[in-house]
Amino acid sequence: MTHSNPTLQQLGEFGLIERIKQLLPPAPPSVFVGVGDDAAVWQPTTGKALTLTCDCAVEGRHFPKLKGQSLAFIEQMGRRAVHMNLSDIASMAADPRFALVGLALPSNRTVESIEALYRGIVQAFTEFDVTVVGGNITSTSGPLLFHITLGGEVTPNLAVLRTGSQPGDHIGVTGFPGNSAAGLHCWLSETPLPSGTESLLDAYLQPNARVKEGLCLAPYVHAMTDISDGLLLDLQNLLVPEHLGAVLHQKKLPLHPSMKTLTQHLKQPSHQFTFAASDDYELLFTAPPHAIPALEQAYYALPNVPPLHWIGTVTESSGLVLANDETKTPLTIQGWEHFQNAQRAITPS
Amino acid sequence: MTHSNPTLQQLGEFGLIERIKQLLPPAPPSVFVGVGDDAAVWQPTTGKALTLTCDCAVEGRHFPKLKGQSLAFIEQMGRRAVHMNLSDIASMAADPRFALVGLALPSNRTVESIEALYRGIVQAFTEFDVTVVGGNITSTSGPLLFHITLGGEVTPNLAVLRTGSQPGDHIGVTGFPGNSAAGLHCWLSETPLPSGTESLLDAYLQPNARVKEGLCLAPYVHAMTDISDGLLLDLQNLLVPEHLGAVLHQKKLPLHPSMKTLTQHLKQPSHQFTFAASDDYELLFTAPPHAIPALEQAYYALPNVPPLHWIGTVTESSGLVLANDETKTPLTIQGWEHFQNAQRAITPS
Repeated sequence: MTHSNPTLQQLGEFGLIERIKQLLPPAPPSVFVGVGDDAAVWQPTTGKALTLTCDCAVEGRHFPKLKGQSLAFIEQMGRRAVHMNLSDIASMAADPRFALVGLALPSNRTVESIEALYRGIVQAFTEFDVTVVGGNITSTSGPLLFHITLGGEVTPNLAVLRTGSQPGDHIGVTGFPGNSAAGLHCWLSETPLPSGTESLLDAYLQPNARVKEGLCLAPYVHAMTDISDGLLLDLQNLLVPEHLGAVLHQKKLPLHPSMKTLTQHLKQPSHQFTFAASDDYELLFTAPPHAIPALEQAYYALPNVPPLHWIGTVTESSGLVLANDETKTPLTIQGWEHFQNAQRAITPS
Repeated sequence: MTHSNPTLQQLGEFGLIERIKQLLPPAPPSVFVGVGDDAAVWQPTTGKALTLTCDCAVEGRHFPKLKGQSLAFIEQMGRRAVHMNLSDIASMAADPRFALVGLALPSNRTVESIEALYRGIVQAFTEFDVTVVGGNITSTSGPLLFHITLGGEVTPNLAVLRTGSQPGDHIGVTGFPGNSAAGLHCWLSETPLPSGTESLLDAYLQPNARVKEGLCLAPYVHAMTDISDGLLLDLQNLLVPEHLGAVLHQKKLPLHPSMKTLTQHLKQPSHQFTFAASDDYELLFTAPPHAIPALEQAYYALPNVPPLHWIGTVTESSGLVLANDETKTPLTIQGWEHFQNAQRAITPS
């Protein structure tokens, strides 16, 4: 029996695995054994340490429901999941190397939709020279879910951690945090984006992990993380374990021209989205003032980088404060919390 | 507001992560950065290659529904998931080293049930000197699910693969494949196990990954895998890529005394369960006849190992055959297939 557009149930697990294997490029010499045995065998580089992270993305919660979407959109969601993971390796200032991809799939999905998802995953990894060395496929009665484990390499003790910030450090950020939240807000509320501001939705749908930027910033920064839960929530993670605080300067907060257009159009404050729960995958870091000239010189020597913004300073007293010309306002942390923010699912069910 | 037995929704993601961190033992020196940063940093042993595997277990499909079960049972299911993963590393003849644990959890579960699950996971890993270096927690509207990535170390080129079997090799197996399937069958059909045969259910609920056995067998075997889908399906994976076949000898198939008692009690053939879809996590391997004496000597020098059984021979012609005194019967492969065997879920929903 043949099917013109078979479902997973019709093709079966082993048939799907065969199709997915066709999407994988040839493995480099560091991979002794790739997909297809009980485990992969991979040769690390002598003298390097491994950075390891995993992330899980649930349909309808971390990304929009795929059923009924175009294959191009589904492929984009595969790419997006990869960049979410790459961003964690980028923020350690490590070099991404290998990945394992776990998929839990409802049996009624079409094979071509899963192939599109996987194509997006593999193409994004290939761009960063990451080899998919293994994975797992299972069926589920719940939402489609994928779980990516990513391994990178870094010179031991040169990984940049969340700890290490000092009072007086400047707080820097790549790109425009909040753009992703603004794009998502308009999409979910079905508010048409004003002409010329489409990049806000792209910030949500097509984030770019700042891998080369992280590697470049490493020698100059004290601490680094990526913005995945919201600027303030992630900043809080850089202010430990010393119970440090931060002053952010209203006028120094990044404001993308599209964001200015949108917030004017919505008649809302221009930084309405800057602190929101946000999937920007930009880098957030602290650096001593004396390091900044060399940092900027190295950074802007890289091709195609987003602008750096210095948005505030690390303080000795805990708490986050927003400073304007004359006023200082305490900031309440906003961000994403899994079990309690369930109502902020992408497409509530 | 306090709750005597809070749910995940009441405690929140960050509260749960704090509780889970308490369950982790101190990290060894190879872990530069453990749980709590954007990624872990782990130092591999110079000269070793990494073996990498991941596996996903879905509640109600790969293990029984946890809601309403005792905390001891839930803990056991955490232990079981770890052994499922360890088994893949064991069958490569590698030494398990680090793990990342991803959990997708329904918000209405109690914190204590998730702590029990995690305790089972951590205790099992600790027994094998595996460090949990990272993980991920998310909420899901679907079934509880966990996804474990496990890294091991092996001397390059000494990993034992599925490929490498030669015609004339003997086929060996540890322990008693089929016991797990028999125990599960009785449990699902609510058939009371005859007195003294309770180990059959233990084979399902409390498998033991054959890690030290795999390391010991490595120098003697041509190819190795573990039995997770069923003896015949997994044996087929050792008969590639040369299109080899196998003859299995009826009289040499392992028959545990409890299995004999059960099948007599059920009035079924004594090997009724031997070839069934099965979660035995025993090792299955091929070895040249001349290696067997030294293999057995090394193997039985290990403490607390299950008996080895030599069940058949690799043949040049493809296909599986069951040989009796006078007859030869072609065997049809039985085993587990995710999208098509959904009806064999543990607790159909």
